[in-house]
Amino acid sequence: MACGWKLDMACEQIVLRLPGWVEEFLDERGERFGTEDERMRLIIELSQLNVEHRTGGPFGAGVFEQQTGRIVAVGVNVVESYNCSIAHAEIVAIALAEQSLGCYDLGAEGRPTHELVASTEPCAMCLGAIPWSGVRRVVCGARGEDAVETGFDEGAKPSDWVGALQSRGIEVVRDVLREEARAVLRKYRESGGLIYNARRARRGQRS
Amino acid sequence: MACGWKLDMACEQIVLRLPGWVEEFLDERGERFGTEDERMRLIIELSQLNVEHRTGGPFGAGVFEQQTGRIVAVGVNVVESYNCSIAHAEIVAIALAEQSLGCYDLGAEGRPTHELVASTEPCAMCLGAIPWSGVRRVVCGARGEDAVETGFDEGAKPSDWVGALQSRGIEVVRDVLREEARAVLRKYRESGGLIYNARRARRGQRS
Repeated sequence: MACGWKLDMACEQIVLRLPGWVEEFLDERGERFGTEDERMRLIIELSQLNVEHRTGGPFGAGVFEQQTGRIVAVGVNVVESYNCSIAHAEIVAIALAEQSLGCYDLGAEGRPTHELVASTEPCAMCLGAIPWSGVRRVVCGARGEDAVETGFDEGAKPSDWVGALQSRGIEVVRDVLREEARAVLRKYRESGGLIYNARRARRGQRS
Repeated sequence: MACGWKLDMACEQIVLRLPGWVEEFLDERGERFGTEDERMRLIIELSQLNVEHRTGGPFGAGVFEQQTGRIVAVGVNVVESYNCSIAHAEIVAIALAEQSLGCYDLGAEGRPTHELVASTEPCAMCLGAIPWSGVRRVVCGARGEDAVETGFDEGAKPSDWVGALQSRGIEVVRDVLREEARAVLRKYRESGGLIYNARRARRGQRS
């Protein structure tokens, strides 16, 4: 077969990495985050640093052991740097957590209960990914409408997305440090950050 | 920081590869697939081979240039083999296509129009990923209810998901070789294939 992708072996694998600054950042912050606010503060800081380091959009996420507060994995948006529209913060955090635990089910029996902390409420794609991941709780900072206000696109979420998660036994906590999280979105917009999307002429896309 | 994930550098990157048999399979099939049926037949065959080779669930997907029928990338479900709940066929195909083209927007100006062909209608996560990818058309084989009938979980999709895509200018074509695609799902179930999910006790998960 003579087509380009076949000849380019790199196209047969997907590789996504966290930006280089993340490791040092986490080293300085420690391993356990006892309260909801502590976890969210870390994740908001990640979202802000991702903008400051110009490594992606203003979104961060993390997977924590719910009881102990141990951090299992974090994610930031790396859509632009990896040319990958799938690489939203929540997706990166979930995939890294599953890899770290060697299991595609973060809710598997005999394991600690896990929660996802996201600096902004999930877009339609990330929302769809949450039940598949096995996390039992989702903690959100900024609201979806805060992202929309900034110019991002949430996608087509079920009207009662919170209820849809809760009906699957996944608890949803909203508005944790919402104003701090929202401030990062606004700052990104004001600084002229790219509100990229696949249909630029029509609307901004969430990351 | 002494936590496990920090020490394990592998956890700072996500790597997903297509199974080894895919390359040879595509070599034999050529580069261009002129009709909808030809494209779907290739993708259904991928879904079937993924089961036969025991490399994942009964789902395949591909990104094609809509006009020329040139294949840009394919995906199969590799959730189990990579311990990654995100690694559905559509996600893998989209990410590989974007990587191949060096662009997170398959609908970018000056590029050919792209379409996603999926052996089964997308689950909630993959549905959410479609607008972000920039594909302008989605061609589906088996229906979501065929997957549910087999024991898989679709997730919480908007009730009019077809209309939601169309309102964004993304055409949706359903039921292309539906019975052939459905037969792969049924055979998988009958052969005792794993209907894995993150909440096994409650319901099967789509892949």
